[in-house]
Amino acid sequence: MIKEKILRDPVLNEIHVYDQVILDLIGTPEFQRLRRIKQLGVTSEVFHGAEHSRFAHSLGVYEIARRIEMHLSLFYPSQTAGDGLWDKEERLVLLAAALLHDLGHGAYSHTFEHIFKTDHESYTQKIILSPDTQIHAVLEQVAPDFPEKVAQVIAKTYPNPQVVQLISSQIDADRMDYLLRDAYFTGASYGHFDLARIIQMIHPYEGGIAFDDKGMYAIEDYVVSRYQMYVQVYFHPVSRAMEVLLQHLLERVMYLYQQNKENGLQNNFVSPLLQPLFRGEVNLQEYLMVDDAVLLANISEWRLNEDSVLADLAHRFLDRVPLKSMTISKQTRGLLPEMRALVEAVGYDPNYYTAENDSFDLPYDDFDPEAFKQRTQIELRQQNGDLVELSQRSTLVEALMGREFGDARLFFPREMLQEHPVEDVMAPIYADFQRYIENGQLIEPKPTDSVK
Amino acid sequence: MIKEKILRDPVLNEIHVYDQVILDLIGTPEFQRLRRIKQLGVTSEVFHGAEHSRFAHSLGVYEIARRIEMHLSLFYPSQTAGDGLWDKEERLVLLAAALLHDLGHGAYSHTFEHIFKTDHESYTQKIILSPDTQIHAVLEQVAPDFPEKVAQVIAKTYPNPQVVQLISSQIDADRMDYLLRDAYFTGASYGHFDLARIIQMIHPYEGGIAFDDKGMYAIEDYVVSRYQMYVQVYFHPVSRAMEVLLQHLLERVMYLYQQNKENGLQNNFVSPLLQPLFRGEVNLQEYLMVDDAVLLANISEWRLNEDSVLADLAHRFLDRVPLKSMTISKQTRGLLPEMRALVEAVGYDPNYYTAENDSFDLPYDDFDPEAFKQRTQIELRQQNGDLVELSQRSTLVEALMGREFGDARLFFPREMLQEHPVEDVMAPIYADFQRYIENGQLIEPKPTDSVK
Amino acid sequence: MIKEKILRDPVLNEIHVYDQVILDLIGTPEFQRLRRIKQLGVTSEVFHGAEHSRFAHSLGVYEIARRIEMHLSLFYPSQTAGDGLWDKEERLVLLAAALLHDLGHGAYSHTFEHIFKTDHESYTQKIILSPDTQIHAVLEQVAPDFPEKVAQVIAKTYPNPQVVQLISSQIDADRMDYLLRDAYFTGASYGHFDLARIIQMIHPYEGGIAFDDKGMYAIEDYVVSRYQMYVQVYFHPVSRAMEVLLQHLLERVMYLYQQNKENGLQNNFVSPLLQPLFRGEVNLQEYLMVDDAVLLANISEWRLNEDSVLADLAHRFLDRVPLKSMTISKQTRGLLPEMRALVEAVGYDPNYYTAENDSFDLPYDDFDPEAFKQRTQIELRQQNGDLVELSQRSTLVEALMGREFGDARLFFPREMLQEHPVEDVMAPIYADFQRYIENGQLIEPKPTDSVK
Amino acid sequence: MIKEKILRDPVLNEIHVYDQVILDLIGTPEFQRLRRIKQLGVTSEVFHGAEHSRFAHSLGVYEIARRIEMHLSLFYPSQTAGDGLWDKEERLVLLAAALLHDLGHGAYSHTFEHIFKTDHESYTQKIILSPDTQIHAVLEQVAPDFPEKVAQVIAKTYPNPQVVQLISSQIDADRMDYLLRDAYFTGASYGHFDLARIIQMIHPYEGGIAFDDKGMYAIEDYVVSRYQMYVQVYFHPVSRAMEVLLQHLLERVMYLYQQNKENGLQNNFVSPLLQPLFRGEVNLQEYLMVDDAVLLANISEWRLNEDSVLADLAHRFLDRVPLKSMTISKQTRGLLPEMRALVEAVGYDPNYYTAENDSFDLPYDDFDPEAFKQRTQIELRQQNGDLVELSQRSTLVEALMGREFGDARLFFPREMLQEHPVEDVMAPIYADFQRYIENGQLIEPKPTDSVK
Repeated sequence: MIKEKILRDPVLNEIHVYDQVILDLIGTPEFQRLRRIKQLGVTSEVFHGAEHSRFAHSLGVYEIARRIEMHLSLFYPSQTAGDGLWDKEERLVLLAAALLHDLGHGAYSHTFEHIFKTDHESYTQKIILSPDTQIHAVLEQVAPDFPEKVAQVIAKTYPNPQVVQLISSQIDADRMDYLLRDAYFTGASYGHFDLARIIQMIHPYEGGIAFDDKGMYAIEDYVVSRYQMYVQVYFHPVSRAMEVLLQHLLERVMYLYQQNKENGLQNNFVSPLLQPLFRGEVNLQEYLMVDDAVLLANISEWRLNEDSVLADLAHRFLDRVPLKSMTISKQTRGLLPEMRALVEAVGYDPNYYTAENDSFDLPYDDFDPEAFKQRTQIELRQQNGDLVELSQRSTLVEALMGREFGDARLFFPREMLQEHPVEDVMAPIYADFQRYIENGQLIEPKPTDSVK
Repeated sequence: MIKEKILRDPVLNEIHVYDQVILDLIGTPEFQRLRRIKQLGVTSEVFHGAEHSRFAHSLGVYEIARRIEMHLSLFYPSQTAGDGLWDKEERLVLLAAALLHDLGHGAYSHTFEHIFKTDHESYTQKIILSPDTQIHAVLEQVAPDFPEKVAQVIAKTYPNPQVVQLISSQIDADRMDYLLRDAYFTGASYGHFDLARIIQMIHPYEGGIAFDDKGMYAIEDYVVSRYQMYVQVYFHPVSRAMEVLLQHLLERVMYLYQQNKENGLQNNFVSPLLQPLFRGEVNLQEYLMVDDAVLLANISEWRLNEDSVLADLAHRFLDRVPLKSMTISKQTRGLLPEMRALVEAVGYDPNYYTAENDSFDLPYDDFDPEAFKQRTQIELRQQNGDLVELSQRSTLVEALMGREFGDARLFFPREMLQEHPVEDVMAPIYADFQRYIENGQLIEPKPTDSVK
Repeated sequence: MIKEKILRDPVLNEIHVYDQVILDLIGTPEFQRLRRIKQLGVTSEVFHGAEHSRFAHSLGVYEIARRIEMHLSLFYPSQTAGDGLWDKEERLVLLAAALLHDLGHGAYSHTFEHIFKTDHESYTQKIILSPDTQIHAVLEQVAPDFPEKVAQVIAKTYPNPQVVQLISSQIDADRMDYLLRDAYFTGASYGHFDLARIIQMIHPYEGGIAFDDKGMYAIEDYVVSRYQMYVQVYFHPVSRAMEVLLQHLLERVMYLYQQNKENGLQNNFVSPLLQPLFRGEVNLQEYLMVDDAVLLANISEWRLNEDSVLADLAHRFLDRVPLKSMTISKQTRGLLPEMRALVEAVGYDPNYYTAENDSFDLPYDDFDPEAFKQRTQIELRQQNGDLVELSQRSTLVEALMGREFGDARLFFPREMLQEHPVEDVMAPIYADFQRYIENGQLIEPKPTDSVK
Repeated sequence: MIKEKILRDPVLNEIHVYDQVILDLIGTPEFQRLRRIKQLGVTSEVFHGAEHSRFAHSLGVYEIARRIEMHLSLFYPSQTAGDGLWDKEERLVLLAAALLHDLGHGAYSHTFEHIFKTDHESYTQKIILSPDTQIHAVLEQVAPDFPEKVAQVIAKTYPNPQVVQLISSQIDADRMDYLLRDAYFTGASYGHFDLARIIQMIHPYEGGIAFDDKGMYAIEDYVVSRYQMYVQVYFHPVSRAMEVLLQHLLERVMYLYQQNKENGLQNNFVSPLLQPLFRGEVNLQEYLMVDDAVLLANISEWRLNEDSVLADLAHRFLDRVPLKSMTISKQTRGLLPEMRALVEAVGYDPNYYTAENDSFDLPYDDFDPEAFKQRTQIELRQQNGDLVELSQRSTLVEALMGREFGDARLFFPREMLQEHPVEDVMAPIYADFQRYIENGQLIEPKPTDSVK
């Protein structure tokens, strides 16, 4: 242990580091790079305070894990192997995994992955395991198999289920930090919950992590906060609209890049640091050179590009001209081809100027063995030691359980909603489009309307 | 007036827009560009939450001005010209000036200005006055002379002193927002004060803005908060160290650029968007194309540059390897050449690897007609209408008044402080350097030491 | 209007008074008396911060009403009678009713009313309408029918439904203040919601008060907060236990009082100020002389009373020796006589030392014409002006709607749960009692157990 | 150790108890009595939220001491006797002294002590040492000499200076809790400081408690907060006015009591529980029977007393009719007899209706061996282990040091300030009185005025 090092953090107040290895990991270029990757990508276009980085979030996850570990070693230290209590030897692997769990994220994460077919979890593991990174060098100093162990925690294959669940479960250090942090930086007044109380209620058992029953209300509040952050922030239609813009913009770049290549033309409209990604042959060091700034600087140059679609999309993205949207339902989904046709009729390529996008999430669900994406259920420990699943104790959670929140939307250029002068030959098309919308929803327009 | 538009803000809770012109100004590319300029530049390297943008700050200044204006029109509306009360006709010019006051800031503002000899206040006025900007186009719709009026407020030449003081004085909308905002995002627990109370205490008079005497404690608290933010955040030695790095890095680029030019070589190591700045011939549109991302993306490429000094400085800046520092006093300033010589002796170019830097500010001072940078004093209105200067009412402010806070420092590579093995031929030089430091201060080493 | 008067409030920051009549009402003895009535009665025995008074709460309700009224007159001032907008003439009646709505509360309200058969709402109206009170004198200065109008608002018979709903509905100034205030003083981290946002979303219509649909999440959050305060604070089993103690104590006093009376003995163990209540002939002035302190001082004297049951109950109440409790269900309710018999068997009079107590509440319910206690539903205003009931828009509220939260409990002396030495002849009775409890619930003990 | 018991606290979030002895001390009647003693006495008449009890404060001091002790045993456990580090054996004596330090306070403490010549510190020790209290019984179970040790800490005679300074010094658990708690409940927005940071900076040494130099700003902020609470809350003129009323009221009761006694009349206008105090022969059990409620209930009865001065003072106290005040200076002090004479001239007994009252305090002062009330200076530990007194490191504290804040005031009936009709024969006297006041200060009236 070193003499404590303290970092000021607006969400958790202070982040304490007591281990030289943690300090060294923070100091690596691979970790410092996370300063240049925004945690919420385009969300800051809607919530202008949300400029916080994955660097800050990663420190936060580390700090929450550290507080949990301190609680576990003080109150539930294992006495004999297999007693289901906390093994203090797991301390460093837990802290390192918490700190490093997001290491592989790329610029504007989800869109980036979709376009370049990358996967941040796999890159996180590569960075940890590759002998060429400083992260690996630091981890290796702990023990030769330490990088492997940390990678296993992130891959959820680590043998100790307590360690895995503290990093990835329905109520883990990662989620707790991002909910609190995103609430703080967006200014959402809804995402708060009592972190200290939840940590205090953690009770390990052989199968993982449970919570004392007297912490039930704090956990209930966490589940509600999580729901609120989803419906209000993560699913916000305007940030989804900006994400659609970014995705279409990159698709356009990819299209132009391929065109040039096929025609034997140079692709110097893409900066050297981005080239490997478009070429489709990116190595780890090249991957790590790309951050939000590199992507944004390219988009700034593309704003002046001779391809008018690319230049327009870059303008819309940089100058925040989001697509508009309407909700669609099962009943109205059949109308989408008509809507796209109307957008095309006034001159927009529907591949770049329209999109369909769903956002759904289950706020809490108990363990369903058939579920595609298995979720760990939250267990409450009764006075007599029995574990009871949360929704059996909380009427509120039971009420929420298994319900889906979110919506499906069609995105389209905001120009479709504007009034156009009668002399504009396109005016009837715009008017026709607008007939399909009521209270923000796609509707079957009334026949009488179409007669007019 | 339009139907109110509300933006969520973590510091002020909500930002309310009631005027189409304000909404249109926010929507211009020139204003949206401020999203890509960090408010505190390199400070986020020390306070990792401080990633907030000048966009957010500008909205905040607008919102505070709006709240003040609402207070003034409700409680102190002018009845007859010259009665010293608030003229409601000034509303829009106040709000527009508040919103736009930072429009001309460049990337990593202070360093940028120093290197490229630009001035953000003059650029702010250019953007407002140039017929080519969308900002100008929007302002002009209000009235033909409206851009000129807004520019005058920013230049402090506007005839109504109340409007000018609300934007620039010792306790104005700008300062109040940045203190609260910087405290929020850095997580400093010291920078808070009671904004609502201070606004409520504002009392206009013919010469400007005074405060009701019963608000004295709130203002006292503001003065203390301001002092605290200065000594703890703005003067932080590590963020000054990062700023030194950035400055030296850009000086190195400038040097290489000139070298290449003189040698007739290409300067394509600088991206097209930055070229005009290094050429020294930047027009307004080119100026506006440069933001933090463009600069950062260039630094990322420079990390691979063949010039080892540039590459090293870029690495230190991106991977956060700040220079270390010690405080210097009048007595020890004479030792600086020796210190620089020792740094050079182990192989660092002292022009790029050392720096001297002062940070001083007066936390509050009353009006001193001789002062270089004139400051408006804070006036408290007594029961009988007399105005009394703050320090005559507040023992605390009187105690602080006229005192300077801050320090002067020498910056140098952190390697100078490390222990070096005896077999290292440079080891005695490092040891010699370290003799000059005690408790973080530059000292005259004891003669006995030098004997050793 | 007078020059604004500001009261510092920890929950709402500041309370602003602009009307001399409001200031005068606050200054009356009848209103000042509320300083000596705790808002939450015995709840401070569980949440030790919750010592706040009905005085503070009443000011809070006034302040929230004032903020709502300011919003309504700024954004929705009525233009013509019957346009469904806000009639500014209602301002003062709204503010006065908000301030005075709790005037009639007695000491430790609910218990007090139960024992002395008083009703605080009827006393509130008496105080307002009686020509003998200073409250009445102040109100009368506004207009001769003004006391009557204020009383009507409290009785919900006032013709303007907007005024009535702002004081009493599912989301009114009263509830909003007490939820925030009780959360603040108990320290519950769950009861917060975004008051400013909710106020801003208020939209009057001819039938009352609706909310803009874009405020839906803020209202959803309010409904959840309300639920959380109920289950965690208002229904807390220990505070119900203390209330049971107080009630039985007063019943014992009443019993002794009647006994003495029948036996022609003096009742000087009851202080002069309390005598009228026990005599059953209390006039308004006498009623107003009784506050928490008067009741508490009597209980302090009763601790030394020669009646051992009274002395013991007074000791338990003052020294915080609450009864313990277990939950009971429909299935186990039949066992209650056995439980009471066991308590009696060890020497406690079950009338004073046991109690059954239910706490149930519906967190939100839409309007049910059959319901005993009619509730106004919360209406959301859509873009096109339609009103839609909250649960049709909020999946979360729909999930909660109509569900009951709370429990039924049997209270008994904590001594029943203690271990007793084998030589204690009562030991088997205690053991028998304890067999009926598992995880805090009353259960049917297993037959095998009873064999032992 | 027992399984942790958690109490919800609005200021410190949670209070944790791990020791059965602490739990038992909390459960004693002597400690529960503190629920019925307000922490700030009459201050709640000005800051209506400040109804918090000494019970809550005492728990808070305990909790802060517990957190400090945890910090000390984790980071600075003593290895060998005399190494200046923290001796874990002191844990329980520290916690018990922290919890019990205010045990002897009477109702409305300072006034009470002044009238009845009692001293709360000496009563605290009596309660701890007397074999008749339950407090003593619980403490004795730890060790026979344990009550004595706890009493020594409170008397500052305990041999370990670290324990003593944690309970009583310029920055101790007691002050830290009351500043935070009083700020929270009054709603003062100024009294906050970073408790967690200060605790973390605590560094024991053989002579007591020092703080790491890097905590300097947090301590500076504490000193400022303390100053702010003094000038804004503790010295508030209206709460001093209410205290004057209470004092004069009790003096009147004392006078009447003596009169009756001398005349052989009954004193049954004083309730049995208060009798011993007025008789001047109070034993410990009798002392402990008196709390705020007992005193308040008496005052309620006195409001109906036949002595018109007593009845009027009781009315003014209960119905909050504070005396008004003006500041007096050395220069104007000589005018006080004239002012009193004018008050008497309109019919008020100046002994009961006027008062002179000073409030001064030094916000921070270093150790002055001559000072009447010795203060421990705050020491900062430098990198090399040296201790440096705070004001030598903090320009802000140096600026504040040794300055006195506060004022001296004359209190008088508010009627003196009212306008009186010309026909009132007393009108000229009121007018004369008012000539002596300007901007709230006592002044020498201008001669021209007196001519009129």
